[in-house]
Amino acid sequence: MIPTAVQTYIDSHRDAALESLFALLGFPSIANVADPDGCTPCAQWLAEYLAKAGFATELLELPEAQPAVFAEHHEGDDLPTLLIYGHYDVQPADPLELWDSAPFEPEVRDGWIFARGADDDKGQLFTHVSAACAYLKTDTPMGINLKLFIEGEEEIGSNHMPELLELHKDKLAADVLVVSDTAFFAEGQPSITTALRGLAAVEVTATGPDRDLHSGSEGGMVANPINALCRIIASLHDETGRIAIDGFNDNILDPTDEELAVWNSLNYDEAAHAAELGAPALGGGERHLPALVRNWARPTLDCNGITGGYQGPGQKTIIPSTASVKISCRLVPRQDPQHVLDCIVRHIEANTPEGITMTVEPKAGVGAVEFPVSSPAIDAVKAAMLAAFGAEALTIRAGASIPITKHFQDILGLDAILAGVGLHEDNIHSPNEKFKLSQFYGGIEFSARLIAEIAKGL
Amino acid sequence: MIPTAVQTYIDSHRDAALESLFALLGFPSIANVADPDGCTPCAQWLAEYLAKAGFATELLELPEAQPAVFAEHHEGDDLPTLLIYGHYDVQPADPLELWDSAPFEPEVRDGWIFARGADDDKGQLFTHVSAACAYLKTDTPMGINLKLFIEGEEEIGSNHMPELLELHKDKLAADVLVVSDTAFFAEGQPSITTALRGLAAVEVTATGPDRDLHSGSEGGMVANPINALCRIIASLHDETGRIAIDGFNDNILDPTDEELAVWNSLNYDEAAHAAELGAPALGGGERHLPALVRNWARPTLDCNGITGGYQGPGQKTIIPSTASVKISCRLVPRQDPQHVLDCIVRHIEANTPEGITMTVEPKAGVGAVEFPVSSPAIDAVKAAMLAAFGAEALTIRAGASIPITKHFQDILGLDAILAGVGLHEDNIHSPNEKFKLSQFYGGIEFSARLIAEIAKGL
Repeated sequence: MIPTAVQTYIDSHRDAALESLFALLGFPSIANVADPDGCTPCAQWLAEYLAKAGFATELLELPEAQPAVFAEHHEGDDLPTLLIYGHYDVQPADPLELWDSAPFEPEVRDGWIFARGADDDKGQLFTHVSAACAYLKTDTPMGINLKLFIEGEEEIGSNHMPELLELHKDKLAADVLVVSDTAFFAEGQPSITTALRGLAAVEVTATGPDRDLHSGSEGGMVANPINALCRIIASLHDETGRIAIDGFNDNILDPTDEELAVWNSLNYDEAAHAAELGAPALGGGERHLPALVRNWARPTLDCNGITGGYQGPGQKTIIPSTASVKISCRLVPRQDPQHVLDCIVRHIEANTPEGITMTVEPKAGVGAVEFPVSSPAIDAVKAAMLAAFGAEALTIRAGASIPITKHFQDILGLDAILAGVGLHEDNIHSPNEKFKLSQFYGGIEFSARLIAEIAKGL
Repeated sequence: MIPTAVQTYIDSHRDAALESLFALLGFPSIANVADPDGCTPCAQWLAEYLAKAGFATELLELPEAQPAVFAEHHEGDDLPTLLIYGHYDVQPADPLELWDSAPFEPEVRDGWIFARGADDDKGQLFTHVSAACAYLKTDTPMGINLKLFIEGEEEIGSNHMPELLELHKDKLAADVLVVSDTAFFAEGQPSITTALRGLAAVEVTATGPDRDLHSGSEGGMVANPINALCRIIASLHDETGRIAIDGFNDNILDPTDEELAVWNSLNYDEAAHAAELGAPALGGGERHLPALVRNWARPTLDCNGITGGYQGPGQKTIIPSTASVKISCRLVPRQDPQHVLDCIVRHIEANTPEGITMTVEPKAGVGAVEFPVSSPAIDAVKAAMLAAFGAEALTIRAGASIPITKHFQDILGLDAILAGVGLHEDNIHSPNEKFKLSQFYGGIEFSARLIAEIAKGL
């Protein structure tokens, strides 16, 4: 049970919680853009908000890193400690012209909050902030110690987090780590995500002649960097959709029969999913495998962006000097990201044609994570989910990555419990990102109840 | 012999000719850009310049077409008529940052004129304009009738020219057609080009989901339009560099043994050519064939530009909604451009993967052209070239296209004599386009002498 004073506070402060979330959503906190209105003001606003509610707060900083917000409520040395992780940085908002309202001017339409970050992750982290504030504002003992750690570089790979976690190991120590940055399998079907994919990314540039050339005068003689780059990209998959890079698929841990049985029992409709995405069919990955297996238990290699040559109106009959592509791979449990990056580099070197120079710039890689599927803390999360959303939480996997969960495991020895309250239709990373009001309010209930459940003891 | 008065005038008006060319080069006359300072003012300036020199001039116009300049000097009904073709429109100037001087602010450095259009084709056409003006300004009879036809849409395919030539068939009637829009095989080696490649172009767009998606949440399930487009592009060539589209290579006329013997006798150095272009090696086309054969007698398929997904700084881990590529093909004698376009469309349709919609937008295609390698008019051109440049002109081919030469053949029954005075190092279609001053002045001599040679009778 949520303590009555807390429940009453939550019920009577829904509009206030929404208004505060709107203030948070107003910051254009894109981590890799040096916007003076962006990350640092956002972190400062959060720290101040939490301090006003009664948290001891501070900004954890590193040179050239976006600040992380740390907030602590300490009730007793013998009480269990819950660490909540979230991130205030967001994806870039472009293409802007596809948004129906400005990405950093949040608004509610038809029961949904629309804004960049509405779900990922400002909306989700704010369910925990709002629940905790309800305890503090009503001077209700939590029965636990609560720590909030809210970083500002999740969307660009959390590259500074290993260093920051090492530095603040003691400060961040906890018994339970809960992260709300994932989604329900479907509305009405709460879910705990027990594995996340990792990430390896490269940027590949193909260069031929040192300037754009006339495609008639030189065509047929000179290698074309766009054609060469496309040929390399095509060679990265075989006919079945399997990644065809030597060594890339080493050590992959296949899902167990038990896991497959749960996944097959889920109410998943591939055609409906394609229709929801506006695609003629899904068509991605290894076509002989079910879609959920492809997304949860198989690696991917996707081009995120490609550019080269003349892109303006009309025609320009050139052989361009250069072309480049941004590629990112999702990795599954047991794949080593450094090995994967090495395999990609070797593949590209081995397949570079005459007349072309390829440069491969590896970006930070991070491995996939696996978590336990049961524990007393997971039981507490399940009880809180059931109370808040009226349905048992299933354990599933997700196709996305939250690199810091790997660092929590490696550095703090903490397995994250991924208890997100987003929905798949939330358009995260896309135009018109949204978060359902009922999920936001349900998330606050969930978090308030979770505190009470953990207070019972683990 | 050039008449003495004309020769004296040319010799004493080199600076004036250069100054007038600079005025012409100052117009940003890019045909597919609606710049109020662009094509129409350029055409008007040319018409006025020619009228002042004594030509009867007019602008030939069509709705939505850039105007063409027509100028006529009629001396006698029984005299042979020479038609000179050129184009005042130029390629776009981007990437601007790679120019050492502004593309539409011509300047001379180290004996070269630098500007967009310095060679292609303002500089070359102005050799004929300057020579003709020397006759008219000195009231020297030419002994021929001279017509100039200078269009404004060559760089975008001369799409309106068939209609314009049909409309003005009688006005443009001539005995000899000379075009200076090609290059010497090498400096000191004048050349007459006896075949040009044709052009077929398409723009292909691959569309998957109706918005950019999170590459983790959906990756492995959803087909990626960039990956799919690259796979299609890669499928357009086989391992040897041959175009692998069913039917594309139908009807190609191979060069004769006599032609191959001349080409093999040319002083061509593949490694030096690659070095000149700043490329590690040539590497383009069908690798088992000599480079000149690949450029002059084999078709090409080059990506001119590709775009899709996130192209800004850093990473954005998305599956993009769409990606597109501009492709142009150079065609060789006997290939039918419509058939080629049909083959491309069929190939793409047949190879479109599940989950992706491909749209192919064919652009206007035009066939390759072949011309006679000898005739009395060609003898006149050779004599003028020898007099102006001190070396015998060889007959070669070129890899580029001048679509209107095909229309001249089909509509006016006129075989063009391609007597260009550019050099391969002129960077046409590239940043820092240039034209050697000695070629400009030599070109004026050539044109003045050509009038005298044709006046002797054909």
